[in-house]
Amino acid sequence: MLGTGLIGTFYTAALHAKRSRDRVGVVYSRSEERATRFAEEWGVAVSTTDLREAIEHPATDTVVIGLPNDLHEEAVRIAAEAGKAILCTKPLARNAEEAQRILELVERAGVFAGYLEDLCYTPKCLKAVRSIQDGAVGDVMWVRSRETHPGPHSAWFWDAEQAGGGPIVDLGCHCIEIIRTYVGKGNRPVEVMCWADTLVHPIEAEDNAIALIRFESGAIGQLEVSWTFRGGMDLRDEVAGTEGTIWLNNFLRTGFELFTSGGTGEYVAEKAETASGWLFPVGDELTELGYVDMFADMFDSLDSGREPRETFYDGYVVNGVIDACYRSAASRQWEPVEIEWRGGKARPIERTAREYDGKVVIKEEKLPDGRVKLILKDKTTGIFEDQVVSGSGVAG
Amino acid sequence: MLGTGLIGTFYTAALHAKRSRDRVGVVYSRSEERATRFAEEWGVAVSTTDLREAIEHPATDTVVIGLPNDLHEEAVRIAAEAGKAILCTKPLARNAEEAQRILELVERAGVFAGYLEDLCYTPKCLKAVRSIQDGAVGDVMWVRSRETHPGPHSAWFWDAEQAGGGPIVDLGCHCIEIIRTYVGKGNRPVEVMCWADTLVHPIEAEDNAIALIRFESGAIGQLEVSWTFRGGMDLRDEVAGTEGTIWLNNFLRTGFELFTSGGTGEYVAEKAETASGWLFPVGDELTELGYVDMFADMFDSLDSGREPRETFYDGYVVNGVIDACYRSAASRQWEPVEIEWRGGKARPIERTAREYDGKVVIKEEKLPDGRVKLILKDKTTGIFEDQVVSGSGVAG
Amino acid sequence: MLGTGLIGTFYTAALHAKRSRDRVGVVYSRSEERATRFAEEWGVAVSTTDLREAIEHPATDTVVIGLPNDLHEEAVRIAAEAGKAILCTKPLARNAEEAQRILELVERAGVFAGYLEDLCYTPKCLKAVRSIQDGAVGDVMWVRSRETHPGPHSAWFWDAEQAGGGPIVDLGCHCIEIIRTYVGKGNRPVEVMCWADTLVHPIEAEDNAIALIRFESGAIGQLEVSWTFRGGMDLRDEVAGTEGTIWLNNFLRTGFELFTSGGTGEYVAEKAETASGWLFPVGDELTELGYVDMFADMFDSLDSGREPRETFYDGYVVNGVIDACYRSAASRQWEPVEIEWRGGKARPIERTAREYDGKVVIKEEKLPDGRVKLILKDKTTGIFEDQVVSGSGVAG
Amino acid sequence: MLGTGLIGTFYTAALHAKRSRDRVGVVYSRSEERATRFAEEWGVAVSTTDLREAIEHPATDTVVIGLPNDLHEEAVRIAAEAGKAILCTKPLARNAEEAQRILELVERAGVFAGYLEDLCYTPKCLKAVRSIQDGAVGDVMWVRSRETHPGPHSAWFWDAEQAGGGPIVDLGCHCIEIIRTYVGKGNRPVEVMCWADTLVHPIEAEDNAIALIRFESGAIGQLEVSWTFRGGMDLRDEVAGTEGTIWLNNFLRTGFELFTSGGTGEYVAEKAETASGWLFPVGDELTELGYVDMFADMFDSLDSGREPRETFYDGYVVNGVIDACYRSAASRQWEPVEIEWRGGKARPIERTAREYDGKVVIKEEKLPDGRVKLILKDKTTGIFEDQVVSGSGVAG
Repeated sequence: MLGTGLIGTFYTAALHAKRSRDRVGVVYSRSEERATRFAEEWGVAVSTTDLREAIEHPATDTVVIGLPNDLHEEAVRIAAEAGKAILCTKPLARNAEEAQRILELVERAGVFAGYLEDLCYTPKCLKAVRSIQDGAVGDVMWVRSRETHPGPHSAWFWDAEQAGGGPIVDLGCHCIEIIRTYVGKGNRPVEVMCWADTLVHPIEAEDNAIALIRFESGAIGQLEVSWTFRGGMDLRDEVAGTEGTIWLNNFLRTGFELFTSGGTGEYVAEKAETASGWLFPVGDELTELGYVDMFADMFDSLDSGREPRETFYDGYVVNGVIDACYRSAASRQWEPVEIEWRGGKARPIERTAREYDGKVVIKEEKLPDGRVKLILKDKTTGIFEDQVVSGSGVAG
Repeated sequence: MLGTGLIGTFYTAALHAKRSRDRVGVVYSRSEERATRFAEEWGVAVSTTDLREAIEHPATDTVVIGLPNDLHEEAVRIAAEAGKAILCTKPLARNAEEAQRILELVERAGVFAGYLEDLCYTPKCLKAVRSIQDGAVGDVMWVRSRETHPGPHSAWFWDAEQAGGGPIVDLGCHCIEIIRTYVGKGNRPVEVMCWADTLVHPIEAEDNAIALIRFESGAIGQLEVSWTFRGGMDLRDEVAGTEGTIWLNNFLRTGFELFTSGGTGEYVAEKAETASGWLFPVGDELTELGYVDMFADMFDSLDSGREPRETFYDGYVVNGVIDACYRSAASRQWEPVEIEWRGGKARPIERTAREYDGKVVIKEEKLPDGRVKLILKDKTTGIFEDQVVSGSGVAG
Repeated sequence: MLGTGLIGTFYTAALHAKRSRDRVGVVYSRSEERATRFAEEWGVAVSTTDLREAIEHPATDTVVIGLPNDLHEEAVRIAAEAGKAILCTKPLARNAEEAQRILELVERAGVFAGYLEDLCYTPKCLKAVRSIQDGAVGDVMWVRSRETHPGPHSAWFWDAEQAGGGPIVDLGCHCIEIIRTYVGKGNRPVEVMCWADTLVHPIEAEDNAIALIRFESGAIGQLEVSWTFRGGMDLRDEVAGTEGTIWLNNFLRTGFELFTSGGTGEYVAEKAETASGWLFPVGDELTELGYVDMFADMFDSLDSGREPRETFYDGYVVNGVIDACYRSAASRQWEPVEIEWRGGKARPIERTAREYDGKVVIKEEKLPDGRVKLILKDKTTGIFEDQVVSGSGVAG
Repeated sequence: MLGTGLIGTFYTAALHAKRSRDRVGVVYSRSEERATRFAEEWGVAVSTTDLREAIEHPATDTVVIGLPNDLHEEAVRIAAEAGKAILCTKPLARNAEEAQRILELVERAGVFAGYLEDLCYTPKCLKAVRSIQDGAVGDVMWVRSRETHPGPHSAWFWDAEQAGGGPIVDLGCHCIEIIRTYVGKGNRPVEVMCWADTLVHPIEAEDNAIALIRFESGAIGQLEVSWTFRGGMDLRDEVAGTEGTIWLNNFLRTGFELFTSGGTGEYVAEKAETASGWLFPVGDELTELGYVDMFADMFDSLDSGREPRETFYDGYVVNGVIDACYRSAASRQWEPVEIEWRGGKARPIERTAREYDGKVVIKEEKLPDGRVKLILKDKTTGIFEDQVVSGSGVAG
């Protein structure tokens, strides 16, 4: 385990969770004090402040990188050279160029490499993707992924140099991969339109951004990220398909509602902005945020020699989209996503084209009395008209 | 009452609602059969297919226009000439040029003119605006307004010539005015970035669109409209402010949940796509969609000689933003909103600028143990660091 | 308007709401100062501290009683003698005996009498009742009505002598009539089982109670009332029918969610226990709590000479059920509801009795593969078994 | 694993979940065909129809009993004799007498015994219990636990002889233990008042029941069970405390909402009553229903030699409460819970007793203007009055 911050703690808690077979054996931190404390707290045998030593240690089968973004490449290089399996936190890199170098490192070394994009592994996401694959919503037309909170906990996130940017990098990387998961990994992100601004915090990076991503099929992804949101952490995804709709709430409204007068002054729920009033905790954060299912997929994939759901290539695509976001925010127009595409061709969203009585059926609607109302367009005159028909309409 | 379609019915039902003093006295329809039927159903004394006769009828104090978009200008002209008070449905016109002519007609005639934008009068919207004015959310940074459903009921909506466009015109006009209501009517909409596409229906107008509107204060409005949404009618607004958040759901999740096996084959809820399973009706559509409060404001304003909340000038601004949406969708870049602005100047969103120990405070966060964690930036070195302080942080 | 407390204010606000034809012309209060202040605030021409004067005043067509429970009978007596129409707040009386005397007063005088049970007039309740009447949920089996908050605002409520009891009287009167509305007014409440206790407040009356009401049809009503609930005012109703389910939330979760840091110290939402954090106001309390529709029904009924939805007889039945609650809480067993019943006979809940292959069908369930699984009971051996059949099951 | 029905499948899926160390090694079913199929499907080495063989098999460390209720005692006897650790599904037995015999079997044999009450292990329940222990809601006054669905899947549940009763046994066992978990395991269930009826299904057992359980502290538990609920599976818990409130929704409203036109005819979500319209699946049923955390606690407890959260004694107490429910439903009055109590004494709910100005403070309420309104009772005269005081009220 490289890194002992919030993400290192989440990862270790998930790896050690419940009846898991997996254990952290070696921990690295840049600070000796934190390395030692972490090792004690989690029962890790070896702790070190020497990155190479941690990676090359014989007890290390798999290197889990939970370091600031600017340190990923170096850690991957050492681990790839050591021939170890590598799991790297999100985002893979600060930009697509760096991501591509990282991708090449692991591909050249031939080591197993998994991209730790936890929010594509939430139980809700996994179930929703299965529903989509079963055809429950038809063709996906639009996906909205929103991740907003009042700003990150650690100092380095706020430094654009170390982080590579603001919430577009920090939170947008989640949204982009969530969107790809719903529109289909084989659906090429073609171009991006992005607005970004620094509205509140005294920083150089953006603290708010919205972007549209147009995919080859015609589908649109919409990401909304913010470091200025008030009220907790808002993690919501919405999918609109030709035959259905999916609304997921991963954090603030999950069927857990707690009101407290706050009289005790105790800590009652994580990531809430207040200690009293109505609070909305989640049951088990490690599971709800996808950590448990993510590591299960990673280690099961490693054990069985197959690719995990989230690969370094996915991380590279995400960085490609992020780069396009920043270019678009600057140029104020749509910018192409410049990546080496391996995903094949996607078919366009299916359009209905039915006729009734020689006219184009624009819409069909069931009336309360059982009859069907059609909106029709005459192909020659171009005139639109209503028509109410009995029976089952067009199908009849 | 000019028009006997769905909107004419809603308007009349709202005007006659409960213990109202107001009554429809004359009804006009292009079809004699519908005019007569409507008059009977609603107890209206006079019905006619002659537009001028309806308007100039001595029983007509106020002309309520509920006609297709391309017929607004003509109706306003006759009513203005007749010196009658005029209430016109949304959108005011098909484009800003037409809207400006309509605006000039009423201003030159000096008649009372109200813009029937019902969704700015929902009880939730009115209450939310008061909360914002009381400072509950601080400065508004972002407003999202979403209106989507599976497509309109009447044929003329689908004809871009009569309607002036697709859902950007039909639904976006609501969203734009809702957004203006939350960011402040004195906050100039500066420019627009819009994506629009025809994904499903065999029509020439768009059936889906998303637009960003940048306001003078720096606030961003986001509108999402669709005629392909599945699951009913989604009317949601969200406001993010520097000190708070508002989430409104006007239709699909309002505390009314009904499951029915559908065994009876009866009609159980409006605007639902299915007759069985989980349905989400609203209690009283006329109130929930704002019609009752809207007409109360219109007639109270008329009686007391003041301007209503929603004026023809507001309708003109909305058309100006819609025009910019279409230009942006075509040019694929931000387009200025070209309107004659009467709203004055807005101050920018307030940015925090506090210091601690000579360093810039980036973020302040209460820890479970009562201490405060600061993220600080050294102004000379540019280095970011965490610091945990006791007491009440910066204020201390 | 007799009474200038919270309820008098709500009533007057509702009567004067929007474009209403109705106006309060005379106001009575026991305190001269409050009478005068109320008259000024609401534009009421006449104010007095003489009850008889207020009632007999020529400007008074209809007497609206918004007084403490122990003063209803006297006010009704004077109004009945004066031959005025009477609207009385809930509960009608402190017990069934007093209620019966009140009922006799108005019936002997032959005056119009309406029972101001607002929560049976919420838009959601009215819509839900129509759905039930249309068969959407089949036969009603169970209704839960819950009304809880942290305790009333005025001192007299807490005095069991003036009020007639605690929340069973104050809030239970709503729940009982809501339950009757859903199971059907012609469905006799037969017996009651009630638990009541004083858990928190230093009072003699109960501060918490739960009661079950068994109706003639076999349906069960369940009321839950509390003056110790934390988190606002919880007004929820649930209906379980043989063919469907209804869940209504009248207050705390109605699609209006507001987070505020509370920095301004301003008042942002009514009936919330906190001034910061997540708050859940309703859009328009007068409408959402039923006041507007209630008075519309009352005055429309009065104008057209028909009975209103809620009559003094209904108020009397409610008091009869409340009495049974107190008797049951004391005797710790089911107690009969002792009332003079005018509602006729109700048919029992319909039970299914289908057979398949000569066996009793206990349950039928659609499998994912389209087949139907039956649970069957052999009528002779009494043995239960599963059987999977193709096609549409019993119907096939 | 004894039993291959739905519960055996859930248990095995949970035991094999993700990176678990635990595996099912031997499976028993009464039917050879199901034993073999199950073994193949789940990769279980040994399958048998001989109960004793399964239990005594050397590969069996721990016996997991997932059999119909009437077969628990026999299985426990054989396992206890074999000295194996035993985990038994809920309810422990059909009645308290049988439960006591089972308890004695394991206590005499000295084997590890865990009670598989999964719903006390849902992540939400575990988190909520921690919040209560941290004082977030003060003293618990009332707990409502509701479990309702349209009826069980397997035939034996419907046979009162095999099952021991209807939903009081099948679902009430969950509710009772959930309620105990919230009011505290050391809080003795003193007496029970229960209503039960057979409203719809042609069975001898009840298909609906509601019960109140009074605990030593004064707290009230309320269980609602039904086999006739329409709309899916309703699993909700509510806790009211002196300082706060908890509302949990374990199934139907967990932040996952899916609308589907159902056009594909595919299976899209479990336990939904319909294949189209709005559906509300959960993300990961095994986790959300508590199976994963339950087995983790069981095996961790077994490994470390401590008692699990849920013991056979807990199962026995549950059966004691169920017995009292049936006695009360028959006698129509409160019935004592007849159990051998090992839980010690509980302190009563704390009642406030503050004074102001020599008077009893009944209620304290913050006004919008910052002042405090007190409701006071004069101890000598017994008169109630309002008083508005500045500052912080009683504390000041």
